[in-house]
Amino acid sequence: MKTQVVIIGGGPSGLLLSQLLHRKGIDSVVLERRTRDYVLSRIRAGILEVGFVNLMREAGVGARMDKECFIHDGTVISYGDQQFRIDFEDLTGSHVVVYGQTEVTRDLYDAREAMGGKIVFNTDHVEIHDADTDKPYVTYEVDGTEHRIDCEFVAGCDGFHGVSRQTIPLTVRREYEKVYPFGWLGVLSETPPVHDELIYASSERGFALCSMRNANLSRYYIQCSLSDSPEDWTDKAFWAELKRRIPTEAAERLVTGPSIEKSIAPLRSFVTEPMRWGRLFLCGDAAHIVPPTGAKGLNTAASDIHYLYHALVQFYETGDPEGIVRYSEKALARIWKAERFSWWMTNLLHRFPDQSEFDLKMQRADIEFLRENRAAQSVLAQNYVGLPF
Amino acid sequence: MKTQVVIIGGGPSGLLLSQLLHRKGIDSVVLERRTRDYVLSRIRAGILEVGFVNLMREAGVGARMDKECFIHDGTVISYGDQQFRIDFEDLTGSHVVVYGQTEVTRDLYDAREAMGGKIVFNTDHVEIHDADTDKPYVTYEVDGTEHRIDCEFVAGCDGFHGVSRQTIPLTVRREYEKVYPFGWLGVLSETPPVHDELIYASSERGFALCSMRNANLSRYYIQCSLSDSPEDWTDKAFWAELKRRIPTEAAERLVTGPSIEKSIAPLRSFVTEPMRWGRLFLCGDAAHIVPPTGAKGLNTAASDIHYLYHALVQFYETGDPEGIVRYSEKALARIWKAERFSWWMTNLLHRFPDQSEFDLKMQRADIEFLRENRAAQSVLAQNYVGLPF
Repeated sequence: MKTQVVIIGGGPSGLLLSQLLHRKGIDSVVLERRTRDYVLSRIRAGILEVGFVNLMREAGVGARMDKECFIHDGTVISYGDQQFRIDFEDLTGSHVVVYGQTEVTRDLYDAREAMGGKIVFNTDHVEIHDADTDKPYVTYEVDGTEHRIDCEFVAGCDGFHGVSRQTIPLTVRREYEKVYPFGWLGVLSETPPVHDELIYASSERGFALCSMRNANLSRYYIQCSLSDSPEDWTDKAFWAELKRRIPTEAAERLVTGPSIEKSIAPLRSFVTEPMRWGRLFLCGDAAHIVPPTGAKGLNTAASDIHYLYHALVQFYETGDPEGIVRYSEKALARIWKAERFSWWMTNLLHRFPDQSEFDLKMQRADIEFLRENRAAQSVLAQNYVGLPF
Repeated sequence: MKTQVVIIGGGPSGLLLSQLLHRKGIDSVVLERRTRDYVLSRIRAGILEVGFVNLMREAGVGARMDKECFIHDGTVISYGDQQFRIDFEDLTGSHVVVYGQTEVTRDLYDAREAMGGKIVFNTDHVEIHDADTDKPYVTYEVDGTEHRIDCEFVAGCDGFHGVSRQTIPLTVRREYEKVYPFGWLGVLSETPPVHDELIYASSERGFALCSMRNANLSRYYIQCSLSDSPEDWTDKAFWAELKRRIPTEAAERLVTGPSIEKSIAPLRSFVTEPMRWGRLFLCGDAAHIVPPTGAKGLNTAASDIHYLYHALVQFYETGDPEGIVRYSEKALARIWKAERFSWWMTNLLHRFPDQSEFDLKMQRADIEFLRENRAAQSVLAQNYVGLPF
């Protein structure tokens, strides 16, 4: 088989890239290790930057999103019983969009299928060959049969545990990592959200987040110990703990219900450099991870897709390799900013096991300064709605 | 002896308070452990907030300062060979004033003496009695003879090691502290400053600061190990190390010369709560210490004097104890902000022994974000020129 771009990974990044390229007449094949149903069963975040939303529209897959999404003009930050709002619209003239990653992925699959996009599921033993030459190719197995695709470029959209990053030799690759000493216990429940915007809650008992997918689907998180497992937490215990961490007035109107999903995610900051090796490009979680505080996960992936899409279009339309050569530099410049913001917001709101009394005072002073200083709020808002590409 | 306010400590805070009270007809006595010459020989910082400058003017001691000071409309931040300017005037409409603490203290002594202010030098064994009653008194010795002053209030302006803070019982007092794992090696030299504004330099070899007192008196600092002693550093070694930490173009025009003072200061963040116990008020270093990054030391002391001065005038002029009762709360609210800023700026610019590669990337990302984001610059500038009282 032959194509122009092999895209490894059929999550939202890979699908979005494939769809965008298709509309510019650039041929691609997506290789996905799992099935479509498996990919769509993964619960992920749902806060989209306008930059991402525009990319979805440019890909021609924005119709359902534009109809069903919610616009969030701000967010609430609470500490103990006190709370204040960061007004994105007032501070930046922009906003974020609430639309679940699962829905994004579903829309992308529907679009790819409608356009006859080539997606190969259940691929095993994917290997990227000769990525540092002009003639890379990818091999993989499906049901025990080996296949080969010759191509011009490879986009590694296969996540943190994927093969793409590992393909870059250790002599070239440099990795930066911070693992946080806690996790997030998340619960999905078919209940109306406690508030029409997100509440980021700092409390003496640890962080909590009140989020949502739609008017009757709430997503709540509480900071938990890494040694906890979801089975340790009954629904009752979860709701009780959540109520202790959010302002009393919010706790009193919180509607609880059975959890339809409950899981624990560790928090990690991770970046690999460079993000390009020859004709292999890393995108999204394959190259970097942010802790979820600040909702940058899917948005950083979209940022990479933006740069890679424009680089490939530039190359195929004009022959100019500038965007390709500078992909890693451009993508990383924006990624480090998102890493900085996610790390800062994680530090601002969580309890850390080694915090001294002085450290706690500094954390509190940071939150109170944010409450009263418009420039500090503006810094948060600009980062939250997404820095310019 | 009898007075209205006993002021313990004849440094700039105590003298300024005494001078301000005098002009409102409130009587005070200043007790200083050392001699005037000793106090004037101490080398200290020289960046004054406008709020402090106005307080000096209100005390009637601003004339020489206004004539000899330098206005700084901005400051330079460098990292490696890159540098950028924070424009205070543009970002805040304000500035800071360069005028050495030694000069401030000299002007205050001259004014106190001209007005017949009571200052007792060489006081030993100072003790504060009955501060939690309406009739406090202070005892001390001079040349072996014990003295007693009955008073209505006691202002503890006697620094970190003074007796005032220790007078507050441990059952009442709560202390918060962070000791940084490095010091500042400072050199004073009779050379023209390398630049007409301060340069705060972050480098792979550690922090450096290019500061000045006047057109022919420069003050330079480099981050050093706590195990270093000034004798370990020849002038030659100091200048060589400083040059490695500042941008090449600055290093090339740096004028070096013999040091006329060389010393190492540890860096500490410290706050005690409350700042009032009965009729005893803590001011300045007696209650709090900031690391010198951000030049807040003398300015936080001035902030306390502002609140205490207004509280005492309110009490003596109207009988209303509101300012006195709320002194600790008001002073601490502003102090914690200055602590936050000094801690943040210290973290931003220094190398820490336990920094991971990821931590270094975050520090770099913080500096680069500051370079390009006006709101972030505004946050720094507002804090640097001084938040409102």
